[in-house]
Amino acid sequence: MKVLYPTSTKVDTSLLEGFPTVTFHAYDPRSPTIPSDLLDAEALITWVNTPDNLQFARENMPKLRWIQSLAAGPNDVLSAGFDPTHVTVTTGSGLHDRTVAEHTLALLLASARRLYEMRDYQLQTRWPGHLGGPQPDRPAGRFTTLRDARVTIWGFGNIARTLAPYLTALGATVRGVARHAGVRGGYEVVSDDKLPEVLGETDALVMILPGDPSTRHALSRERIAMLPKHAWVVNVGRGTSVDEEALADALEKGELCGAALDVFETEPLPETSRLWKTPNLVVSPHAAGGRPQGAEALILENLRRLLAGQELKNVI
Amino acid sequence: MKVLYPTSTKVDTSLLEGFPTVTFHAYDPRSPTIPSDLLDAEALITWVNTPDNLQFARENMPKLRWIQSLAAGPNDVLSAGFDPTHVTVTTGSGLHDRTVAEHTLALLLASARRLYEMRDYQLQTRWPGHLGGPQPDRPAGRFTTLRDARVTIWGFGNIARTLAPYLTALGATVRGVARHAGVRGGYEVVSDDKLPEVLGETDALVMILPGDPSTRHALSRERIAMLPKHAWVVNVGRGTSVDEEALADALEKGELCGAALDVFETEPLPETSRLWKTPNLVVSPHAAGGRPQGAEALILENLRRLLAGQELKNVI
Repeated sequence: MKVLYPTSTKVDTSLLEGFPTVTFHAYDPRSPTIPSDLLDAEALITWVNTPDNLQFARENMPKLRWIQSLAAGPNDVLSAGFDPTHVTVTTGSGLHDRTVAEHTLALLLASARRLYEMRDYQLQTRWPGHLGGPQPDRPAGRFTTLRDARVTIWGFGNIARTLAPYLTALGATVRGVARHAGVRGGYEVVSDDKLPEVLGETDALVMILPGDPSTRHALSRERIAMLPKHAWVVNVGRGTSVDEEALADALEKGELCGAALDVFETEPLPETSRLWKTPNLVVSPHAAGGRPQGAEALILENLRRLLAGQELKNVI
Repeated sequence: MKVLYPTSTKVDTSLLEGFPTVTFHAYDPRSPTIPSDLLDAEALITWVNTPDNLQFARENMPKLRWIQSLAAGPNDVLSAGFDPTHVTVTTGSGLHDRTVAEHTLALLLASARRLYEMRDYQLQTRWPGHLGGPQPDRPAGRFTTLRDARVTIWGFGNIARTLAPYLTALGATVRGVARHAGVRGGYEVVSDDKLPEVLGETDALVMILPGDPSTRHALSRERIAMLPKHAWVVNVGRGTSVDEEALADALEKGELCGAALDVFETEPLPETSRLWKTPNLVVSPHAAGGRPQGAEALILENLRRLLAGQELKNVI
């Protein structure tokens, strides 16, 4: 059985050896084709493949029965139209938890501590004295620190479970919002019908929603208005989940304090977008993830399950 | 017994009540004088007092026997020349641990994740594609994440003990440097004669040294040269502990990757300073601390000890 792994990231195949019937072969996921001697592979590991490449795989790999994407949300593979009765697609959910959680924490701290404003002053050779020296400690109605801040995480999967303990360690009070209420990883998660109440009690809203039609403009104009004026929005999920025009309006009118966005409705953010210049809006270039970690362990586990005839992990 | 507390920060005196012989009185530490009916006070709590105010206190408060500064390093009080045989000075060490640790973490993450560079691009309406999308994970010889990063904290007191667990949670390997070797808060701390070895194994150097003559230019030209080229320096201690010219030289020549400085030899940083424009140098306006937290508990404990004739806490 041939397993194809992409050259677009490091995959240490020595960590996958030991199955007598399995061989591993590198392929270039940016190429419009796949070499003919690899077309009888039964498993394909994908990472930042071009649409052409996936299209070619779909049309020319008759024995393919498993695609392991290393992306948390493999929209590219789903769009390519593989026959679901023959090909099982598994996601890379879990491979990006730490790196996305770290970037989210960076954006939250940069927002609270106003690092972007310090930079603006630095570029003008000006000392931002109002941001340094003696300051009021945790003033009411401002987001100046994670300590005692009320952080709401909307979309409470693996990434949120990794992020939440960092925030707790820094003194924040963390609450989750998801489709189904419950306790996850020790954190209270409320269902999204509680949003009107929860948003009103939020100093920083972290959005980690997936990019499907049901989440389009989840953070709508109406819901933005439910946030306190001093609140910040940090989006590291998908750009489509935020109504960008409504967000920019709220920031310009001072109805919301700030936003740090790692994802956008259109990426790269077009030169004509008003978001570049919206006050207190921080543009991060889809940089939170993009570095799968521990892929080998996931591939190994799913390969073992495939060979054993067991259900795979992270099936879509 | 009169205790004077400053109006420059919130002090909740209801948390200090219960001593029948003690009364609390507010005073303005920015005023050149102290009201005449308060000059018989025996205890003075200080926070961002003017030199004039401290001078006045020294000359006009004959019964003064205890000064509780809320600053971690009360250089202002020490410079005022109170008679040490009559006046015990205690510091606010511990009141700034969480806030300085948080800011340090913010600067470390902003450095690793290049938030300052993203901001530079944003201000030019440019998408910094090289900082987003698929990235190599933890490439050797670069500081791109705290995960698996080797962070050295030079000056290992309360602030370091608060900071270190945050870094550990994010996956960093933390080592301390101090005058005396040992294990503090579960972290290995080596003595400063080990610096040549330790600096060479450092991805990010956090400096939290106090500002006394012995630490002047502790991070000298010679020691900067011991750091790997990809290393970052974050200074939240005192500006005098870094040779700023040597640091700027190293950054300009690419012998060091970056630096985030919250403190400077001269503050505010003069308009003529080359540091404003030094590549990969982040200017933060002495913003790490400045917000004493939990002052009442420290004042209470020391007041109790004073009345009981016990040794005070944080005596200089």
